[in-house]
Amino acid sequence: MKHQYHPLGFEGSRLSQGFWRMNEWGFNPQERLRFIEQSIDLGVTTFDHADIYGDYRCESLFGDALAIKPDLRKSMQLITKCGIHLPCEQRPDVVRYRYDHTAEHIIRSAEQSLANLKTDYLDLLLLHRPSPLMDPDGVADAFEHLFTLGKVKHFGVSNFSPAQFDLLQSRLETPLIVNQIELSVLEPKHIEDDMLNHLQQHAVTPMAWSPLGGGALFGEDQSSKRLCNVRQIIQSIANELNVSMDQVALAWLLKHPSRICPILGSGKVDRLSSAVGALNVAMSDDHWFDIWEASRGERLP
Amino acid sequence: MKHQYHPLGFEGSRLSQGFWRMNEWGFNPQERLRFIEQSIDLGVTTFDHADIYGDYRCESLFGDALAIKPDLRKSMQLITKCGIHLPCEQRPDVVRYRYDHTAEHIIRSAEQSLANLKTDYLDLLLLHRPSPLMDPDGVADAFEHLFTLGKVKHFGVSNFSPAQFDLLQSRLETPLIVNQIELSVLEPKHIEDDMLNHLQQHAVTPMAWSPLGGGALFGEDQSSKRLCNVRQIIQSIANELNVSMDQVALAWLLKHPSRICPILGSGKVDRLSSAVGALNVAMSDDHWFDIWEASRGERLP
Amino acid sequence: MKHQYHPLGFEGSRLSQGFWRMNEWGFNPQERLRFIEQSIDLGVTTFDHADIYGDYRCESLFGDALAIKPDLRKSMQLITKCGIHLPCEQRPDVVRYRYDHTAEHIIRSAEQSLANLKTDYLDLLLLHRPSPLMDPDGVADAFEHLFTLGKVKHFGVSNFSPAQFDLLQSRLETPLIVNQIELSVLEPKHIEDDMLNHLQQHAVTPMAWSPLGGGALFGEDQSSKRLCNVRQIIQSIANELNVSMDQVALAWLLKHPSRICPILGSGKVDRLSSAVGALNVAMSDDHWFDIWEASRGERLP
Repeated sequence: MKHQYHPLGFEGSRLSQGFWRMNEWGFNPQERLRFIEQSIDLGVTTFDHADIYGDYRCESLFGDALAIKPDLRKSMQLITKCGIHLPCEQRPDVVRYRYDHTAEHIIRSAEQSLANLKTDYLDLLLLHRPSPLMDPDGVADAFEHLFTLGKVKHFGVSNFSPAQFDLLQSRLETPLIVNQIELSVLEPKHIEDDMLNHLQQHAVTPMAWSPLGGGALFGEDQSSKRLCNVRQIIQSIANELNVSMDQVALAWLLKHPSRICPILGSGKVDRLSSAVGALNVAMSDDHWFDIWEASRGERLP
Repeated sequence: MKHQYHPLGFEGSRLSQGFWRMNEWGFNPQERLRFIEQSIDLGVTTFDHADIYGDYRCESLFGDALAIKPDLRKSMQLITKCGIHLPCEQRPDVVRYRYDHTAEHIIRSAEQSLANLKTDYLDLLLLHRPSPLMDPDGVADAFEHLFTLGKVKHFGVSNFSPAQFDLLQSRLETPLIVNQIELSVLEPKHIEDDMLNHLQQHAVTPMAWSPLGGGALFGEDQSSKRLCNVRQIIQSIANELNVSMDQVALAWLLKHPSRICPILGSGKVDRLSSAVGALNVAMSDDHWFDIWEASRGERLP
Repeated sequence: MKHQYHPLGFEGSRLSQGFWRMNEWGFNPQERLRFIEQSIDLGVTTFDHADIYGDYRCESLFGDALAIKPDLRKSMQLITKCGIHLPCEQRPDVVRYRYDHTAEHIIRSAEQSLANLKTDYLDLLLLHRPSPLMDPDGVADAFEHLFTLGKVKHFGVSNFSPAQFDLLQSRLETPLIVNQIELSVLEPKHIEDDMLNHLQQHAVTPMAWSPLGGGALFGEDQSSKRLCNVRQIIQSIANELNVSMDQVALAWLLKHPSRICPILGSGKVDRLSSAVGALNVAMSDDHWFDIWEASRGERLP
């Protein structure tokens, strides 16, 4: 399941594991290490973080586990993000949730992430949210600084529109290789708007956050006809192909030609194992369009 | 009325005749031939088809007529489309209306169109609808194959957004020379959005389908104030210029600087003859803006 | 407060003074001259006009004042606009408000503006509104003609969308250096859409018209919760920084990295003087985001 994220580099795994809730998993360092090793054994070697996950604590939880077995570092790829100030107990100086893309903040945040994750380098650093106050030239300076010192190997963004992406890319020497966007059978707007067309044109990898739609797919909520329709078609395809519903939902993303890379989030290794099975689901075009029609709520034009 | 559709080639006629309802005209082969000849005599030499028109039968109806007088082929330009599977009696294997832009389908569909139309080459082949599952590299392979064998001379699309157009174009050696889009005095959204600006910038010809707005313009429906306003201003301009309403509606498209090429659809030669008269309507800028204001429902900003 | 509007030239002032209501100020020529001199003394040397302002009279009002002291010309930069026909007493031949971007109209209008303003050259000529009937090649011809004769030094547009901008730019040798757009704390949509990203990417200066939101900010209207929220946060920041509300509203624009240039419109020199003070307001990122959240009506995502 090795996957080339960009023509100019970054080999990761097609599926990645996110750790935004690792603080809620209740794992001790040994359990965390075990989860990481199991992920790697399953072929999921790309690990997605952000400075602010778990009120700034998740990176360290991961780093503490990695410190037990530092050799694992060369078997994984580490992604993290920066650019947000989050008010919480860990940051008493932060009054309000705010964006900050200054070179100073990006560099300091990346260095803190290195310290937290107990690693010498990040494989991929992302700007977490587009900010109207972003100075693209400042970002370029920060990226160049971090790259030259070998602290970050690749750069990308998250939740950037095509125009925001183009602006930032126009000021960078290095290519933005990833845009993390919300995408699932329940949030399919980027299938129809400019986003995936733009990323695919420029050979940028869309990484999908919340790729299972936040769980509503597997719940009992009957209040939305659309949700029921999507759930029903996915259940039906799952039955037909003798796979699970989450595998169908992930296979729907994996089948798109823009080569979407879903980011998983559960701390249960059987969930991750099931997700890996999505790579082998033989979803037909008909299945794909059936799901899309259910999700968009109308027939193809 | 010869018209250069693209700087790199394809000379057709400014107006084209579409055959999506030829199966409803009730013509025998001789009558079809006669209609084709009359069209050519009127200067309308570009004929627009799609594999699926008339439940996959219209191309053959046309081809059977052309077979009576094969020499006519060199006096006309043939456009057809592919990329849709339509469930109907003729295709019992197709279960649901679906898109298919695989190289295999494009090539097979184009070859079937050649056989149906009784011709050795298509002047222009279009992808009928944008598909999220389109692999642009696969399309590029199919187009190159068809071009190299001399089976298709030019390529284009239909109903593609600017971003979808850019993605596909980025993978092709050959230019996409046409985008067929819905456009009329009653469906003017592309006048204000990015579509026509984008096509004009890249010297791509917009071909307008449903250029008369589907007939509502000439009906009696009084329920929509907007429709009544548009009808009234068009009637008023028609009176002033001593032309017909359909000529005014077509002249409105023809006056736009993106050089819109309307596709007509009636099987009545007098309707076609009237449409040709639209090329000589002396519509002023004031007329054009009067119609636009009526259609958009508010004054110019 | 000198400001480089484009990498290839046009040095003006960061703030500019508009004269669209000069006809309502009730100034005699000496008073107008005095206002112009006071503006220049304050560092506001860029003056924004349009042929149609004041029913085609404002340019002449300005020109009559400049004629008293022609030497002032070299201390100022003159912007004007063309491309609209406005029905009014001064133009009995114009029946309806219409756009006109023909080369003939652009050239004639620019020459009339030169005569009205009593100057030999315009620093910057803008197309006032995008027109669907614009022939970009005709505009290119007009611009080249005016540039070659030394009558206009730079060109730009007003109210053009990114796609409209790209189309026109693709046909011009000269860069469009400005796009005048509506932008204020009360009209912030361009902060989030493609507009500012696009302009910033291409190093085009956004000039903001109605940069104070048309006065509602300083009124008593309590009917809109959003308006009240914006007013309140601006008042609060004004108090904190010990500056005026208009200075806060302008500083919010000035802080954006696309280097927005606000166009002021009052005929009161103390208002202009206050606006100049906005250049020195030490607005923090927190202040900026506080205002933006109030204006967009929801928290940052």
